[in-house]
Amino acid sequence: MSSFILQPSNRLRRTPFSRKVEEAGVKAYTVYNHMLLAQWYRSPAEDYAHLKSAVQVWDVACERQVEITGPDARKLVQMTTPRDLSGMADDQCYYIPMVDSAGLMLNDPVLLKLAEERYWVSLADSDALFYFKGLASGFGLDVQVFEPDVSPLAIQGPKADELVRRVFGEEIVATRFFRHKPVSVQGKQMVIARSGWSVQGGFELYLDGTEYGEALWDQLFEAGEDLNVRPGCPNGIERIEGGLLSYGSDMTREHTPFEAGLGRFCKLERATACLGHGALSQQTEPSRQVRPVEIDGPAVPGVGYFWPVKDRDGKVAGRVSSAAWSPDFKTNVAIAMIERDYWDAGSELVVEAPDGDRNVTVREKFWI
Amino acid sequence: MSSFILQPSNRLRRTPFSRKVEEAGVKAYTVYNHMLLAQWYRSPAEDYAHLKSAVQVWDVACERQVEITGPDARKLVQMTTPRDLSGMADDQCYYIPMVDSAGLMLNDPVLLKLAEERYWVSLADSDALFYFKGLASGFGLDVQVFEPDVSPLAIQGPKADELVRRVFGEEIVATRFFRHKPVSVQGKQMVIARSGWSVQGGFELYLDGTEYGEALWDQLFEAGEDLNVRPGCPNGIERIEGGLLSYGSDMTREHTPFEAGLGRFCKLERATACLGHGALSQQTEPSRQVRPVEIDGPAVPGVGYFWPVKDRDGKVAGRVSSAAWSPDFKTNVAIAMIERDYWDAGSELVVEAPDGDRNVTVREKFWI
Repeated sequence: MSSFILQPSNRLRRTPFSRKVEEAGVKAYTVYNHMLLAQWYRSPAEDYAHLKSAVQVWDVACERQVEITGPDARKLVQMTTPRDLSGMADDQCYYIPMVDSAGLMLNDPVLLKLAEERYWVSLADSDALFYFKGLASGFGLDVQVFEPDVSPLAIQGPKADELVRRVFGEEIVATRFFRHKPVSVQGKQMVIARSGWSVQGGFELYLDGTEYGEALWDQLFEAGEDLNVRPGCPNGIERIEGGLLSYGSDMTREHTPFEAGLGRFCKLERATACLGHGALSQQTEPSRQVRPVEIDGPAVPGVGYFWPVKDRDGKVAGRVSSAAWSPDFKTNVAIAMIERDYWDAGSELVVEAPDGDRNVTVREKFWI
Repeated sequence: MSSFILQPSNRLRRTPFSRKVEEAGVKAYTVYNHMLLAQWYRSPAEDYAHLKSAVQVWDVACERQVEITGPDARKLVQMTTPRDLSGMADDQCYYIPMVDSAGLMLNDPVLLKLAEERYWVSLADSDALFYFKGLASGFGLDVQVFEPDVSPLAIQGPKADELVRRVFGEEIVATRFFRHKPVSVQGKQMVIARSGWSVQGGFELYLDGTEYGEALWDQLFEAGEDLNVRPGCPNGIERIEGGLLSYGSDMTREHTPFEAGLGRFCKLERATACLGHGALSQQTEPSRQVRPVEIDGPAVPGVGYFWPVKDRDGKVAGRVSSAAWSPDFKTNVAIAMIERDYWDAGSELVVEAPDGDRNVTVREKFWI
């Protein structure tokens, strides 16, 4: 695929960190929730190696928050997800498939419970804000629904704990996975969680106020200089290896959480208030599902459209949604939606890649 | 502003015309409704001159449709807009500000009425689909709400009528402004409207089925060869001259239609079923409003963030959201949100452009 310039416009929102990101030498962007998201700095492969060995600071402000407050806050959120929220603690984060009344996915955010009547929905790439607004109006719920000036900054990599220790102290490092704590940033209380869109470990700091962004960025880079801290971003290779799905690509508005392989987050016996409950109850045994697949041959080109997957007789077997050459595993790692007849581990198929047909093997697990 | 590569991914959807667009030499893209939208081919200025003198074919598939069908279809659409839909004919298109219950803008689509119980909402850049879905669930409406496989292709420019005459016949050319007609495309009935996001005149053909896209593209280019037909796209210079607003830039979720200068589309005395009716009724006299402004000096750089506008004493007077050098008017044409104290025509202000302060004059009207 040729490369194209991204034309700047006000419609593509800048983040509190964009100036720092550009000074740091970002080369490629994508657009995510109408906002700029870095795609690589040195090269995808160099960024990948660094992410897995050191620590990176990521501008993921594009993970926009929907803030939901008020007596009906939990009721509203529960309407949108088959995950059961009844046992959620005030310092907890939940990965929630978000669905419409047909059980089809609208987003796969991380939900943060901040207080009994206050939540943040930290979004993947869709205006889920509008769904919450529509439901709140239609059901006449007693809630406020809005996008606050909150912009996550991720600190990811094996040395993330050490960097966070230096800047925020041991107490913050003690945060458990998918829990959050209050943290003081330049004297203002913000929220930090042990989470992030890599499998290298680390934190996401929810910057609360654009005006604090650049100083926070500088603080992290000064404190981490001898840790070889670098700017980074969600890495296409690493996240495929780790099985982190990308909404809009690996699963879309056409898929249920079961098709996306997220059945373990669906508690239909308890989440009966989910508006998609009826529809999902009929679809717990999908006919297609997300699978890790390995693609033979040299490094694949970038995936800009769904690559058809077929069996040896040419019959449709699915499609590849994400793929990349993995320097560590020395193969092409990929994510595909595969039909039931073909989804068992070891199944051998063929993908129509842009540069020709290649052999594909369905795997049991992701690479890590 | 430096230029950056747009990293391809499946999340950035390709259109039925993308292969043709890339073969034709597109140089820059933006992302609009999670989809690729060309930004220029030869250069913004060359494309501009051609658009104003010949005819262009635009891939505007990113104007995604929300299809709303069923007995409550009109009721649902009317909930979202202060424009009165009661007199809308079955072949009519309406430009509708779309608002939430606070009267704030969620989109500014073109609404097509296709039949008594069937509408298309042809979207600007936001997932308004989700708002309709939320309302439909919450109010328990008897409607279907979905995104069909419909991708607009625009034919714009002074020679658009001639090209459409050759391909679709005199009857289609006779279509009045913001009316639509059935048209046969490769034997399939589709919809064509006299509309488009330029002020040069022309049509938008609602391609109904991805598989028809490339043949339609070729048909138009073959028929228009001696008209010097070229691929094009919404042009940043021409649309500012013509006063066509860009949602997400010139007005956002923070603005009412009155602030956006769209008060003429609000019929509050009739559109009482609009959920924003109560809020909007209190805000018919805004304290800031969209204005055309002229910026002194040589060609301005691209606008990637809001440029602050102040008065001669440094007091905040508004912000510039879009600006470009106009070769025809030999000045910098721009769109700004200006505070009431400063919005009268002739008002002289100062904008903090990236390359320094420049004088600004508020204009009475757009340039065309």
